[in-house]
Amino acid sequence: MKSYRKELWFELPRRRQLVNVTREVEAAVQASGVREGLCLVNAMHITASVFINDDESGLHHDFEVWLEKLAPEKPHSQYRHNGAEDNADAHLKRTIMGREVVMAITEGALDLGPWEQIFYGEFDGRRRKRALVKIIGE
Amino acid sequence: MKSYRKELWFELPRRRQLVNVTREVEAAVQASGVREGLCLVNAMHITASVFINDDESGLHHDFEVWLEKLAPEKPHSQYRHNGAEDNADAHLKRTIMGREVVMAITEGALDLGPWEQIFYGEFDGRRRKRALVKIIGE
Amino acid sequence: MKSYRKELWFELPRRRQLVNVTREVEAAVQASGVREGLCLVNAMHITASVFINDDESGLHHDFEVWLEKLAPEKPHSQYRHNGAEDNADAHLKRTIMGREVVMAITEGALDLGPWEQIFYGEFDGRRRKRALVKIIGE
Repeated sequence: MKSYRKELWFELPRRRQLVNVTREVEAAVQASGVREGLCLVNAMHITASVFINDDESGLHHDFEVWLEKLAPEKPHSQYRHNGAEDNADAHLKRTIMGREVVMAITEGALDLGPWEQIFYGEFDGRRRKRALVKIIGE
Repeated sequence: MKSYRKELWFELPRRRQLVNVTREVEAAVQASGVREGLCLVNAMHITASVFINDDESGLHHDFEVWLEKLAPEKPHSQYRHNGAEDNADAHLKRTIMGREVVMAITEGALDLGPWEQIFYGEFDGRRRKRALVKIIGE
Repeated sequence: MKSYRKELWFELPRRRQLVNVTREVEAAVQASGVREGLCLVNAMHITASVFINDDESGLHHDFEVWLEKLAPEKPHSQYRHNGAEDNADAHLKRTIMGREVVMAITEGALDLGPWEQIFYGEFDGRRRKRALVKIIGE
């Protein structure tokens, strides 16, 4: 069995932002030498997400509006977590979007559907944060 | 290490529909010959879901009502993604329900709790779509 | 390839309750002898969740309030699933929080970010229920 590990680092200028990381994950699969296996990608922070969806700017706008409706940032005082912090909403938004994705690796490549793109979803940015890529297989 | 891959195809007559695929996934585990390992099942489309819950028609009705409350289909004009398309709500509904499940395989069978059933959740049907089963182990 | 399986059992006095299981999962990783691999932890019940977030009581209170807003328990009559049962809301809450987490194992330990803690989320307690830990790797 082979295994491979890589961290992807981010320092995004906005509080909330989506970054397409499909190419970086594909590069990790290549580097791993794994032909058949599984690839896990997860946020290492609890106010960020890794998820799969469409790379379409209209939809990304819809996600922003929708998440603000389901788990609004303000008023900060509505959340008990926001004593010393102001990011309770980011914990909730990441819960909806998910911490991780697990993908198949088949014949040496990510086994994705035609429109599946992998995103790092930042909900409390403006500082250095990271995601983990872990690959196992043969 | 063994690996096994299978696609499950769907062409559902309704826009939204849940299909129990537990038997098909169990058959894939049998066919794989894996005794100890992991089984990933994921939608290959970004307007569909694979999830685990109860096979009970009342609950499935509750899911439909609930998802329409959290991410309503209409009016289509409320979503920016709906320029040429009308399926933005399906991207959001699938986000809540999840893209994938990962299950343990133990002693040659899916290691599920007594009420766990695997579903393909379609949120933008009436065309051919598919889910992926990938199994690794020994 | 090595594999390891362990059940974690709960009988919680409240209907809804979060339990930090990070230490139990770490102990399973030690017991497995796996140095590089993947660790799956999933609820074996469809009214419970396994998820990763912060171990902070203010945030846990926020989760309770938020889940009651998105998928309220009462009135029980609002859900069709609640014929003989009263736990439809628990199926919905667990859907938001997620069934499972998959984590990397690197150099013999869980490969988690600094604030990542693993929780069993109970949404229909007061009876014996369990989560599954399954580890594969080398």
